[in-house]
Amino acid sequence: MLRKILIIGAGKSTAYLLDYLLEKAVSQKLHITIGDLNPDSISKSVKEHPSCTIIQLDIFREDDRKRVIEDSDIVVSMLPARMHNNVAKDCLAFGKHLVTASYISPEIRALHKKVKEKGLVFMNEMGLDPGIDHMSAMQVIDRIRQKGGKMLLFESFTGGLVAPESDTNLWNYKFTWNPRNVVLAGQGGAAKFIQEGTYKYIPYHKLFRRTEFFEIEGYGRFEGYANRDSLDYRKAYGLEDVLTLYRGTMRRVGFSKAWNMFVQLGMTDDSYTIENSKGMSYREFVNLFLPYSPTDSVELKLRHYLKIDQDDSIWGKLLELDFFSAKKTISQENATPAQVLQRILEDSWTLTKDDKDMIVMYHKFGYELSGKKRQIDANMVVIGENHSHTAMAKTVGLPVAIATLLILNKEIKTPGVQIPINKEIYEPILSELSALGVIFKEFEVPYLGYNPDSVAS
Amino acid sequence: MLRKILIIGAGKSTAYLLDYLLEKAVSQKLHITIGDLNPDSISKSVKEHPSCTIIQLDIFREDDRKRVIEDSDIVVSMLPARMHNNVAKDCLAFGKHLVTASYISPEIRALHKKVKEKGLVFMNEMGLDPGIDHMSAMQVIDRIRQKGGKMLLFESFTGGLVAPESDTNLWNYKFTWNPRNVVLAGQGGAAKFIQEGTYKYIPYHKLFRRTEFFEIEGYGRFEGYANRDSLDYRKAYGLEDVLTLYRGTMRRVGFSKAWNMFVQLGMTDDSYTIENSKGMSYREFVNLFLPYSPTDSVELKLRHYLKIDQDDSIWGKLLELDFFSAKKTISQENATPAQVLQRILEDSWTLTKDDKDMIVMYHKFGYELSGKKRQIDANMVVIGENHSHTAMAKTVGLPVAIATLLILNKEIKTPGVQIPINKEIYEPILSELSALGVIFKEFEVPYLGYNPDSVAS
Repeated sequence: MLRKILIIGAGKSTAYLLDYLLEKAVSQKLHITIGDLNPDSISKSVKEHPSCTIIQLDIFREDDRKRVIEDSDIVVSMLPARMHNNVAKDCLAFGKHLVTASYISPEIRALHKKVKEKGLVFMNEMGLDPGIDHMSAMQVIDRIRQKGGKMLLFESFTGGLVAPESDTNLWNYKFTWNPRNVVLAGQGGAAKFIQEGTYKYIPYHKLFRRTEFFEIEGYGRFEGYANRDSLDYRKAYGLEDVLTLYRGTMRRVGFSKAWNMFVQLGMTDDSYTIENSKGMSYREFVNLFLPYSPTDSVELKLRHYLKIDQDDSIWGKLLELDFFSAKKTISQENATPAQVLQRILEDSWTLTKDDKDMIVMYHKFGYELSGKKRQIDANMVVIGENHSHTAMAKTVGLPVAIATLLILNKEIKTPGVQIPINKEIYEPILSELSALGVIFKEFEVPYLGYNPDSVAS
Repeated sequence: MLRKILIIGAGKSTAYLLDYLLEKAVSQKLHITIGDLNPDSISKSVKEHPSCTIIQLDIFREDDRKRVIEDSDIVVSMLPARMHNNVAKDCLAFGKHLVTASYISPEIRALHKKVKEKGLVFMNEMGLDPGIDHMSAMQVIDRIRQKGGKMLLFESFTGGLVAPESDTNLWNYKFTWNPRNVVLAGQGGAAKFIQEGTYKYIPYHKLFRRTEFFEIEGYGRFEGYANRDSLDYRKAYGLEDVLTLYRGTMRRVGFSKAWNMFVQLGMTDDSYTIENSKGMSYREFVNLFLPYSPTDSVELKLRHYLKIDQDDSIWGKLLELDFFSAKKTISQENATPAQVLQRILEDSWTLTKDDKDMIVMYHKFGYELSGKKRQIDANMVVIGENHSHTAMAKTVGLPVAIATLLILNKEIKTPGVQIPINKEIYEPILSELSALGVIFKEFEVPYLGYNPDSVAS
């Protein structure tokens, strides 16, 4: 009897997810149904695989959605986060397990009691970030505690970047994931974290000026800026008493200082539309955010407004984007500043067919054991293979795939709505990920605490 | 037969409003009913006035509200803006005129057709700003047009400040109105305006660094920062083709540069609450927004973070607020940064019993007439008399009072939901305001256009 896996949404991140499950289809007795709104984009090898059925599925057509969920044993939802809720309710109603790579929503969290009563596993945040970050962090934290150590500090940074061989522009950055999320990153409230026992709050307009630096052997230097939600996992990780708790996003050194120009100008604002945006030149767009002058150039006004020295390297980054072009024009009607900025950046930051991406994750664990303060640094670097088999697809899709099979095989069996922070989950998944090339390196280093010397202000 | 005026809400701004109407009660055959949630705070002279009835009124008690509205000839709503809607609906149902000093809400605007059909006048934005600004601007704009002039530029600034004799602190500012509105001023979206035919957008975190300067004879220099809504009145004022349209808020020179420190630190944020705010010292509060350091003082960290030179005068402004006090503590539980900042400022910026306030308004009108560019500057300064008879109460309350009587006497009779931009309204009101000491001075000056030299960047 085949076990039926329903995968809803076959977007960017599903190449490895599908490869993994299809490869094990015969040995594990699996049949995979892929439901997607536009199934045409699914690759030929998947389409023709004998263990796979492709269906056109509009999840807003309730009858269709219910029918396919009822007909499955486990559901993997790779839809955008806001679309999981109805799928989750159907899974509960029909008694099906559910796996997603998205942040757990309040609506799904509210189903916990009923999910548990039915003995179902609803596994959320089972991708890269959130996902691998939880698992890799909890593995080390649990180990430290098992030895009798007391956690003092936890910092965790993740970045989706370009591989060194594809790192060909002055920003050391290209869009390897949803560009809109990159443009809007950090908006919607102050970043909150704890440093050495003191709460710290950073407003959006200062976020990209409060970076930290890291070195990863073989890959050089990186910087990190704070995520909004550093305190969210305090309880889940059991870190209520920790002195430093800081989560962030990694970029190559210099990116944040240059990105801050867009923030200062107001170009990342997505809350209003520009009058007459269509046909406006890039230069006119830039001028919208600068004081009026009958004589001064847009360039000089921008330098003066943002106090950019003649020899500051961030200037070259703007020129590389053709930022002051009077010829290149905006094609969008009634666009927000953020939408226009995204389009300008996409001119320069779109991956070519041969470009490879890179995922970097960095954890710092500070703890006290036998009266001595100690520190473990851990990092993971994954390089993409090609255009479809990206590092992002690998690190998001493989944990989902592995978890799905473990749940089907009852190796993960604790029921309820959950995130992967328990040993039952992270041990087998991290072990298999490691075999597949998603490897953490650990280093015992002297305890530094929160090192102010590594902070730019 | 007495005409019955119902005044709902007898707060801060009603001293002159009540004085004006009560003084005319006999000659104009008026009876005034004041409905307030807490009528105790109404002054004795008003309470004992024979033409006045005071009632305790909770406008959320529908029966009470409807009964008193039905029993009146005209309703003056001095409630907070968001509370007018039900009053307006009742006025429509019972066929009563309505006057408010608040921005017209979409809900009230939607009543226009029915209000017009019933021959009622719903007069909104009949205070200072909005109110006197509309009337004084339209009077000059209409005059320019009548002569055959074409408007090129309109700038308008208003400020609620302290009178010169009460101007006793380094900020040249005290709270003469709702402190919360001052702390949150400029938030909620980018400021939008037009300068010499070019749209301009300023994000909140740059708002207080893009000021203009003005000189008012006898009162010295002022500065202005942009309001969010400069473009809102383009159509109402008939200024669709104007090259420069800019509305703003006035402060004494230097206020905005210093206020920008709070904005940059993130202290004006009202969107989240601080953990453990109660009992925190002012110094600890400031440190929440600064990078961690095991050694550096809060003072040095702030100077470095905001790049404040040793000799910058904004530093003294912080010290005057006891900003770095380790002794003064925050009394509010779970307070937002904006709430804490407000409390710190209230320590220093609360009016004493003898303090007087000052209202300043400044308009610039640029136009072309007979092939020549010309400019008219106009300004108004009103000084408060005492604690209850403030300049704010005078400039908000008198237009409301005068309009109420003009509507009752059918001198303002064009029906519909409206703001005071037509001659029928502004001519008699400005004329009477002038007789009561609310006087605009006009100056013909050389046309400067939008003068970049007056702009700080």
